[in-house]
Amino acid sequence: MSNSLTIALDAMGGDAAPRIVVSGANIARERFPNVRFLMFGREAEIAPLLNKMEKLRDVTTVVHTDAMVRSEDKPSVALRSGRDSSMRLAINSVQDGNAAGIVSAGNTGALMAMSKFVLKTLPGVSRPAIASFFPTMRGETVMLDLGANVNCDAENLIDFAVMGSAFATSVLGLMSPTVGLLNVGSEEIKGHEALQGAATVLRGSEKFGRFHGFVEGDDIAKGTVDVVVTDGFTGNVALKTAEGTAKLINEFVRRTFRSSFLAGLGYLFARPALRKLRKRVDPRRYNGAIFLGLNGVVVKSHGGTDALGFANAIGVAVDMITHEIIEKMQGDFAALHREQPKAQAAIG
Amino acid sequence: MSNSLTIALDAMGGDAAPRIVVSGANIARERFPNVRFLMFGREAEIAPLLNKMEKLRDVTTVVHTDAMVRSEDKPSVALRSGRDSSMRLAINSVQDGNAAGIVSAGNTGALMAMSKFVLKTLPGVSRPAIASFFPTMRGETVMLDLGANVNCDAENLIDFAVMGSAFATSVLGLMSPTVGLLNVGSEEIKGHEALQGAATVLRGSEKFGRFHGFVEGDDIAKGTVDVVVTDGFTGNVALKTAEGTAKLINEFVRRTFRSSFLAGLGYLFARPALRKLRKRVDPRRYNGAIFLGLNGVVVKSHGGTDALGFANAIGVAVDMITHEIIEKMQGDFAALHREQPKAQAAIG
Repeated sequence: MSNSLTIALDAMGGDAAPRIVVSGANIARERFPNVRFLMFGREAEIAPLLNKMEKLRDVTTVVHTDAMVRSEDKPSVALRSGRDSSMRLAINSVQDGNAAGIVSAGNTGALMAMSKFVLKTLPGVSRPAIASFFPTMRGETVMLDLGANVNCDAENLIDFAVMGSAFATSVLGLMSPTVGLLNVGSEEIKGHEALQGAATVLRGSEKFGRFHGFVEGDDIAKGTVDVVVTDGFTGNVALKTAEGTAKLINEFVRRTFRSSFLAGLGYLFARPALRKLRKRVDPRRYNGAIFLGLNGVVVKSHGGTDALGFANAIGVAVDMITHEIIEKMQGDFAALHREQPKAQAAIG
Repeated sequence: MSNSLTIALDAMGGDAAPRIVVSGANIARERFPNVRFLMFGREAEIAPLLNKMEKLRDVTTVVHTDAMVRSEDKPSVALRSGRDSSMRLAINSVQDGNAAGIVSAGNTGALMAMSKFVLKTLPGVSRPAIASFFPTMRGETVMLDLGANVNCDAENLIDFAVMGSAFATSVLGLMSPTVGLLNVGSEEIKGHEALQGAATVLRGSEKFGRFHGFVEGDDIAKGTVDVVVTDGFTGNVALKTAEGTAKLINEFVRRTFRSSFLAGLGYLFARPALRKLRKRVDPRRYNGAIFLGLNGVVVKSHGGTDALGFANAIGVAVDMITHEIIEKMQGDFAALHREQPKAQAAIG
């Protein structure tokens, strides 16, 4: 028991909560035998599910609350009137030291607002960001911010570079990750002022990871850099554009195999390989948006995911805790802080 | 001859110019028997190519010039010192009425700067934009701006909606195209001020196409709307992210079919259908970025395209001329202008 690790789960967040939360925890339990769970939500709904999963029940403590944040609640409203919600109590348990991290498939804005309020931003971090990783030609790439901050200045982008590098180093295990700033390539267009300011600082230091320079939209899938840094507006559009394109081509391929008898026959032969491909680009594998820059591990699962996807989000939280990412970021921002006069001069 | 239509070609623009320009014109000639060409560039390089294509030579006039815009030239430099360049002379020929439109695979920034300087912006248009169309689940969608304007205010976005609708109506043949403003979906994030201002005006009028509201990145490939309006920074990132994702999945599928003997066998059966699919999503089919808002038809071909891609870019120019898009936009902006007091009030 001394080596165990406790994850707080918002059992009421997500389209099919609490069912997928409990089933997801059960899958995660098999993968991580040292993990225990604190589940927050309606006991009358959670207990019957747990009773069917004896091994999970043995490592789970349910904390009852009737209140929950709804997906349509505004973050400010959730923050004010959701003090007894399953989401809020789960975050509180991290702050109180009863859990090492929290996973929720609930309202993203509310989760960020509550996490910022309860756990606070790490010293030296201007703003937390939402990060995720993607399959690329070369492996996996981390991108941030994916939607926490619509408008970003140079300081925010530099902080994202530090946070993204810390994630790539500690969780993805990259020794010296490369960082790129997402920009447009046309000669005429020099990119926003914030991008130019951030590039100046990033070029001048190795505290921020190895700075590659500017990258363009197609560099994300190419895997040109390990960490793609952008503002939350552009990052959110890029993420969803990539998802939409992947679905479109998947649909085109599906229609192709149904378009003729021969194509259907070909599908039968290629099926095992195609299944392996589907597994590789399975969005559930990349489920788990990471809130970086907070004084605690917070992972947001997609609201519409299934048990396997939720288990993967738990896996991301376990990885972040095991690799001590918070401690790593604290060290990195302390180092950044010592360099700050120089950085400030370059931005100013 | 009375029904003929002349297209000016910048024979020296693009990675493999003038070869792909001449070969592309030859493919376009077969498709559009009433088209004639004015080719601008180095006669010593163009003539030998034309001599191999007799039918093309019969409908082509070569205007010799030694000067050309290089791909690395800054737009301002090209504008100042490129007065005798093949690109500039080709644009001049449209202004002089010797050609009905121009196609170039050269430097995008220079082409926009020169076109604005020579042809001027249409009355009432705040800024020209770069548009293109994309395959979607439902058919094809036009998106703009793809990179001409990094920062856009509400007025620019409204103008793009009018221009995009005019293109969808006249060239894609849609009776009443729907328009969406690209935004982020999170509840917390309300979107830039410019987006809110533009949405207010677009909601209040039907002069701008049928306004659907805000759309997200994945709506582009879904085909949720016929026209996606965004600023040039976001549009450029979205376009290149979609291209990169498509290439990545294509590569994954290719590797899948090579991963086992059975998969390879399956590929043989499915090959004709897969070839049809490849043709459908062939980037050459969507080659041709359209400069909208100028007082003349200007189409930018991808610099790295081949003859087939260049022929498609010529096809886009022919379509725009045949469907009298400039006249349509003049009418639309005159109508918008009459409504302007109302629009201005909503933005202000």
